[in-house]
Amino acid sequence: MARFLKVKTADDVLSMLKSIRPLPPERISITSACGRRLASDIFASEPVPHFARATMDGYAVRARDTFGASESLPALLEIAGEVGMGEAPMMAVAPGKAVAVPTGAMLPEGSDSVVMVEYTLAVDNTTIEVTRPVAPGENVLKVGDDIAPGASPLRKCAVLRPQDIGVLAALGIVEVEVFSAPRVALFSTGDEIVPIETRPLPPGKVRDINRFSLAAQIESTGALIGLRDTVSDSLEDLVSACLEALRDHDVIVLSGGSSVGARDYTTQVLACLPESELLVHGVAIRPGKPTIFGRAGRVLFWGLPGQPVSALITCQAFVLPSLRNLLGMTEDEPAPAVRAVLNRQLPSVHGRTDYVPVSLSSGTGGAKEASPIFGKSGAISILVRADGYVVVPEHVEGLAMGTEVSVFPFR
Amino acid sequence: MARFLKVKTADDVLSMLKSIRPLPPERISITSACGRRLASDIFASEPVPHFARATMDGYAVRARDTFGASESLPALLEIAGEVGMGEAPMMAVAPGKAVAVPTGAMLPEGSDSVVMVEYTLAVDNTTIEVTRPVAPGENVLKVGDDIAPGASPLRKCAVLRPQDIGVLAALGIVEVEVFSAPRVALFSTGDEIVPIETRPLPPGKVRDINRFSLAAQIESTGALIGLRDTVSDSLEDLVSACLEALRDHDVIVLSGGSSVGARDYTTQVLACLPESELLVHGVAIRPGKPTIFGRAGRVLFWGLPGQPVSALITCQAFVLPSLRNLLGMTEDEPAPAVRAVLNRQLPSVHGRTDYVPVSLSSGTGGAKEASPIFGKSGAISILVRADGYVVVPEHVEGLAMGTEVSVFPFR
Repeated sequence: MARFLKVKTADDVLSMLKSIRPLPPERISITSACGRRLASDIFASEPVPHFARATMDGYAVRARDTFGASESLPALLEIAGEVGMGEAPMMAVAPGKAVAVPTGAMLPEGSDSVVMVEYTLAVDNTTIEVTRPVAPGENVLKVGDDIAPGASPLRKCAVLRPQDIGVLAALGIVEVEVFSAPRVALFSTGDEIVPIETRPLPPGKVRDINRFSLAAQIESTGALIGLRDTVSDSLEDLVSACLEALRDHDVIVLSGGSSVGARDYTTQVLACLPESELLVHGVAIRPGKPTIFGRAGRVLFWGLPGQPVSALITCQAFVLPSLRNLLGMTEDEPAPAVRAVLNRQLPSVHGRTDYVPVSLSSGTGGAKEASPIFGKSGAISILVRADGYVVVPEHVEGLAMGTEVSVFPFR
Repeated sequence: MARFLKVKTADDVLSMLKSIRPLPPERISITSACGRRLASDIFASEPVPHFARATMDGYAVRARDTFGASESLPALLEIAGEVGMGEAPMMAVAPGKAVAVPTGAMLPEGSDSVVMVEYTLAVDNTTIEVTRPVAPGENVLKVGDDIAPGASPLRKCAVLRPQDIGVLAALGIVEVEVFSAPRVALFSTGDEIVPIETRPLPPGKVRDINRFSLAAQIESTGALIGLRDTVSDSLEDLVSACLEALRDHDVIVLSGGSSVGARDYTTQVLACLPESELLVHGVAIRPGKPTIFGRAGRVLFWGLPGQPVSALITCQAFVLPSLRNLLGMTEDEPAPAVRAVLNRQLPSVHGRTDYVPVSLSSGTGGAKEASPIFGKSGAISILVRADGYVVVPEHVEGLAMGTEVSVFPFR
């Protein structure tokens, strides 16, 4: 019975996962960095913009030349030329002069503001009337107004969004350091498993669902699937597949073969790997009790139940948080839970955490309603009808109808 | 002034986009189908499971043989063998017999239920005591209990999630029809634009931010970036780039060159393309007024402002909805807006829709608070500090502090 010594609660397991450190950073092009997480602060080595830019179409002027101007008493300024987009101005703005500038153009030396074209009137080809005063700096983005040199517009651990990629481009940063995406080896095993294209299915056999459903879940975090195989239910084959995976993967996920009563190879496989350690042998949850967690050196090792519903729920509840930690995410950042009201009672058992699939609908008064989806154990169609799951914690004996709950969305 | 005839409101443009039909479907492997949208209903050509499966470890029995069994008066059954995982049973269950089955194994002929091993006691190697009765069908997933033959577990337009991929695998479906991902050609132009690796930046020049930030936005919808170039601000070069794009793209996005006052090539470029039609020339919004929308045959054509903040906001507000329509999504499905309370007044102008970047924080009493981020026009760092934007509709003159607003999240 030594195997039961390591049965943990769901909270125990989640606490253990908190100690997982991010993988070493890698440098990637900003063209593929959206959605990735910065592994270091970004500093501006130069100001943005690096020249004073007009933010309106109009005339670059010395603000003081417009002071007191009005419709009835306009300021008269002489046009000293114009600056095109992307040009370095060939002239300066002397007192009493104005230079035409489109939005985005560089202000000439001597000017400190832009009068919008709407507040000017051309008297002739060389003179304009200005009918409103401008303040110094008005309608101008000055040097460093957007990003000052030395500033840090993006910090370590930020998840890069399109506008953040834009800031990197603005600073001339072509590559960034992000936390590496974990490489995951996904193996499914079991005497009952056959390739999904098998048709007709022999009696007693089922298609290898987990190889596809778990891969999709794992990839949804940004992790990469490396090896992905159906392995025969033999200790030798399983160990040899895992040894190959250890060479260039960060995580091994093995589904099947860990159910009490069936052959229990998963812990034996782990024991055969170098520097291995069994950390969790069974979790007090339903579904998913036979979940196994350990390490082989720096590689995380998960043994999930072979049953597809249990595998999907334990993968979402435990494997995905471990991948997010490797990616440098803190665990308060997964998909935000949706608050909803249970529309019927959820029975449970003290000492066990239950994961109950629910569908969401708009209830009376605008609050969301969570309807538990019951069905026969192991029916994957239940998860297809579900929008997420509710966790019934270990220290309660079920939740009453009307309880406000957090629904963790499937996606 | 003919050009101003086609200035539209934001709502006009969004209404026009509703008529965009999804692209023709494509067949892809289920290994890359997660997140994609089904273009046809999925039907089950066979039952899942296709044999009666035990959902618990125990003994397959005839339920009637256990009726009335109790701890004090157990039913005695003779062990007639066992069924391994993935095996077709070699024996039947005759009256008074039991066959050992692990979870997931196939029930032998004659049995209709499984007694959990917890409610049995081995008397000797050939006999068990059953201490609780089972009902017919108990602890058994019968043929078709999960998915009945002919049922449609997944419908056209469903976005495939990991468990849906699992159902496809369970049904032996290796490829599915999904709506094709739009191929987008992204061009930026403007005399002021230089490649982002340019260092030091010449006076008056800016780096080509849009080529990176808009690409990241576009890819976030599932659309693909095909061509992606900085094109010199010449009509000939722009037309030739667009003609090349027409060959195998579904959408052309051209940023820059559409600001009033600068050279306005965008509408001329569109006019030079075969079967082209200008549908929108300017939108009554801030920022982003010079936004252009048209078609060249079946290809959508967007002209966005060159200014990076305006480009990002108009892309999110208009281009992304058009891409989602091509992907078969209905427009009530983009990222859900977050409800929040404005923590200061937002001035605006009647007749113009304003997009105002805001940051979100937890206000008093648990409600979210939206703080408008003000800053100089065109500063991209504003968007980096923002969590989303608030839309101030055209028919109001600003929003009062304390107004409940929808915040459209940036991601």
